[in-house]
Amino acid sequence: MAKNITPREEDYSQWYLDVIKAAELADYAPVRGCMVIRPNGYSLWEMIQKHFDEAFKDTGHVNAYFPLLIPNSFLEKEADHVEGFAPECAVVTHAGGEELEEPLVVRPTSETVIGHMYSKWVQSWRDLPILINQWCNVMRWEKRSRLFLRTSEFLWQEGHTAHATKEEAMEETLKMLGVYRKIMEEVLALPVITGEKSEGERFPGADNTYTCEAMMTDKKALQAGTSHFLGQNFAKAFDITFQSKEGTLEYAWTTSWGVSTRLIGAIIMTHSDNDGLIVPPNVAPVKAVILPLGAEEAKVTELYEPKAQELAATLNDILGKRSVKVDTNYHMRPADRFFYHLQRGVPLRIELGEKEYSKESVRLVRRDTGERFDVSWDRAPEVVKETLEAIQANLYKRAKDFRESNTHFVESFDEFKKVLAEKGGFIKAYFAGSKEDERAIKEETMATVRCFPLDEEHARGKCFYTGKEGARLAIFAKAY
Amino acid sequence: MAKNITPREEDYSQWYLDVIKAAELADYAPVRGCMVIRPNGYSLWEMIQKHFDEAFKDTGHVNAYFPLLIPNSFLEKEADHVEGFAPECAVVTHAGGEELEEPLVVRPTSETVIGHMYSKWVQSWRDLPILINQWCNVMRWEKRSRLFLRTSEFLWQEGHTAHATKEEAMEETLKMLGVYRKIMEEVLALPVITGEKSEGERFPGADNTYTCEAMMTDKKALQAGTSHFLGQNFAKAFDITFQSKEGTLEYAWTTSWGVSTRLIGAIIMTHSDNDGLIVPPNVAPVKAVILPLGAEEAKVTELYEPKAQELAATLNDILGKRSVKVDTNYHMRPADRFFYHLQRGVPLRIELGEKEYSKESVRLVRRDTGERFDVSWDRAPEVVKETLEAIQANLYKRAKDFRESNTHFVESFDEFKKVLAEKGGFIKAYFAGSKEDERAIKEETMATVRCFPLDEEHARGKCFYTGKEGARLAIFAKAY
Repeated sequence: MAKNITPREEDYSQWYLDVIKAAELADYAPVRGCMVIRPNGYSLWEMIQKHFDEAFKDTGHVNAYFPLLIPNSFLEKEADHVEGFAPECAVVTHAGGEELEEPLVVRPTSETVIGHMYSKWVQSWRDLPILINQWCNVMRWEKRSRLFLRTSEFLWQEGHTAHATKEEAMEETLKMLGVYRKIMEEVLALPVITGEKSEGERFPGADNTYTCEAMMTDKKALQAGTSHFLGQNFAKAFDITFQSKEGTLEYAWTTSWGVSTRLIGAIIMTHSDNDGLIVPPNVAPVKAVILPLGAEEAKVTELYEPKAQELAATLNDILGKRSVKVDTNYHMRPADRFFYHLQRGVPLRIELGEKEYSKESVRLVRRDTGERFDVSWDRAPEVVKETLEAIQANLYKRAKDFRESNTHFVESFDEFKKVLAEKGGFIKAYFAGSKEDERAIKEETMATVRCFPLDEEHARGKCFYTGKEGARLAIFAKAY
Repeated sequence: MAKNITPREEDYSQWYLDVIKAAELADYAPVRGCMVIRPNGYSLWEMIQKHFDEAFKDTGHVNAYFPLLIPNSFLEKEADHVEGFAPECAVVTHAGGEELEEPLVVRPTSETVIGHMYSKWVQSWRDLPILINQWCNVMRWEKRSRLFLRTSEFLWQEGHTAHATKEEAMEETLKMLGVYRKIMEEVLALPVITGEKSEGERFPGADNTYTCEAMMTDKKALQAGTSHFLGQNFAKAFDITFQSKEGTLEYAWTTSWGVSTRLIGAIIMTHSDNDGLIVPPNVAPVKAVILPLGAEEAKVTELYEPKAQELAATLNDILGKRSVKVDTNYHMRPADRFFYHLQRGVPLRIELGEKEYSKESVRLVRRDTGERFDVSWDRAPEVVKETLEAIQANLYKRAKDFRESNTHFVESFDEFKKVLAEKGGFIKAYFAGSKEDERAIKEETMATVRCFPLDEEHARGKCFYTGKEGARLAIFAKAY
């Protein structure tokens, strides 16, 4: 077990921070609540971006960039929106040596300024739909921060679309939720439950919010991404109108959807162990590392290392540029070199020492299971590829099994409280309560409605809390 | 000639803005001095990013992310730096509903906060070099803004490296200048002169600044990118020290280097014409567009369009995903469809009408020269590729010829003023003047020292201004 990592059974929060520190993913910034994303963390974010960005483009979206600073008056145009975000805003009051006439807020999200621009760009039904995404930084002031999960500044993408009809906007909202789910499951190996948020958990200004909810290894829920059907709320606040085919003037229907650097927190808390980080191969910047090893320096540098470089070149052709590295830190002891990559979550270690070299083989060591086996040089590329696929599949399955074995169905509030206290995890229950009921449940149990799962959207039963019949199935949990 | 674009001979500034508007590259943000980068402009930035980012990684750099907000006190730690940047800063004074104890500036550049982090990360010579780059937004408050060239907020990359020796840091400074030049010339088709900045034009806090200077079609200079040798100034201000191999405690040597969305302005003002934008194929998000054309709708949609889609698929395999599009805007007149792509700078138009279809050919029309010719379907992929290469080469040659024919050597200040007034352009002259001389020349002529070109760094002669012998060769020009 790693000495620099607190066991997660002992202190989950400390374990999380220790994993980040050992893997050099992030550090604290000098400004309270802000973080520095170090190269190992940022390369993970680049991989996440690459996959989402490609999927956005495949579904017809284009990227743009809107300004960081938003006039305070914009926020106030949508009543729920300003109530939700104003308390968290950082405010620029001076610039260029002078006091500004109107304070500017650092964007906490960009519905308002984008709505303003769309009202300029949209005249006719031919200008719709607008399918724009933005990758940027946003700021929501936090008193109590936690690296990746809750920081005053974070990186994210925010998609903002405008449509001619309600149906089309709703279709977009659910389509992007599906895109999120697919990438979270297939690339990040995060099993998620997609569903509709309850009234109490909606985005400020949305008619409906849909979410991807994941279970962390402490059995708490993490909201991994959201997609909002904004109805005509922002179109009305910012006057996004268009002339329809029939010649009438109509308000547009808008959506927004986002995922953030929080996903790095989700990866850490879904896959990692007491030795440190584990990264699923499909999102790992470095998928495998090859280590020439041995006591005789001449053999290591003149024989094993060239062979390792040759193998790395072959693997990089198959797996993608820079995805396989050769470790030449010969000044470190072999055990320290192993540990270095183990703590950084590299999915596969490939050892090439004297014994392997003499047999024209390498030794593969899986990060997820610790399993090790030899493979000949000529079969290595194929086996490495297959092994990475097996690791990816195993991480997903392990996480999904964990979630399923920690999801419990309850029929009464007493049972709810008992299961939550004794077992934790996700609680499934029919629920027809109000926003006030949600608040009461949260106050008593700390658990919130995570969502009404779409996979079971037609299930109906008796509400565990109010006793009403015909209630929808909900998932409750304590959440990040 | 385009009705929506002012001829550049008539009003160059208005021409520039009209080109941007017609191509939908950018728009004004509601906050004064800020811009919105629209999808057509942002996709150009993504192409620019892709090429630079790949080159940074090929030279061993990694990306990271540092915080947007910097404590005001950090800026004050480097005397020249604060003097240069403080007057341009936007300042956050309130956050989370409270007044902050210390005001925070929105980063105008990140030497200070990165210096602070490096001092935490660097202990031993083994921790060096640090080769980090950051892609982000920065803010420098502008009273008078101009889209892409001078806006209060812009996007850029800033590389920040730390080294154990002076030589290594200087090598890095010049290496990145070379990387910049190569991509500007080979991808953006911008011929640039690389050279050292004069004392009066250095980055605040740098020992030396190196630059890439390009000539726009109004003969003014545009600084396209800079690379700074920061000496030990920031290492001393932020205490970046390390234990050397020999066991002594040393200050690190640092560099920084950046290019920004200003490059989009450079592309516009180097290649475009009175019809609108022209984008060099290597940086064009859309390299070619195929237009099915004809009076008989059935033939267009059932015969020409499927053939166009087939050809686009073949071309996208060769040229890159999404780089060739099919235009199906049949509700527009053919001339309007042509003009649409012309104004957006698409390098190559491919027409497929009845005549072409019957001959199993397509018609290619070059954006740069207007040249048009037919090519058979089977030869089209090869010829399109070659034609794009020819356009790229032609745009570069045209710009380089223009710069060369507008560069003049002078030997006296009278000649300097005469040439500048009558011909404009770049003025080459031996110069050994002081910072005060630079200021006097600027006041009288509006021209500044752009750089001492590296390609002619050993040339020496008599200073045109002071008469001193042994002066270095300099380039002067009016500049953006």
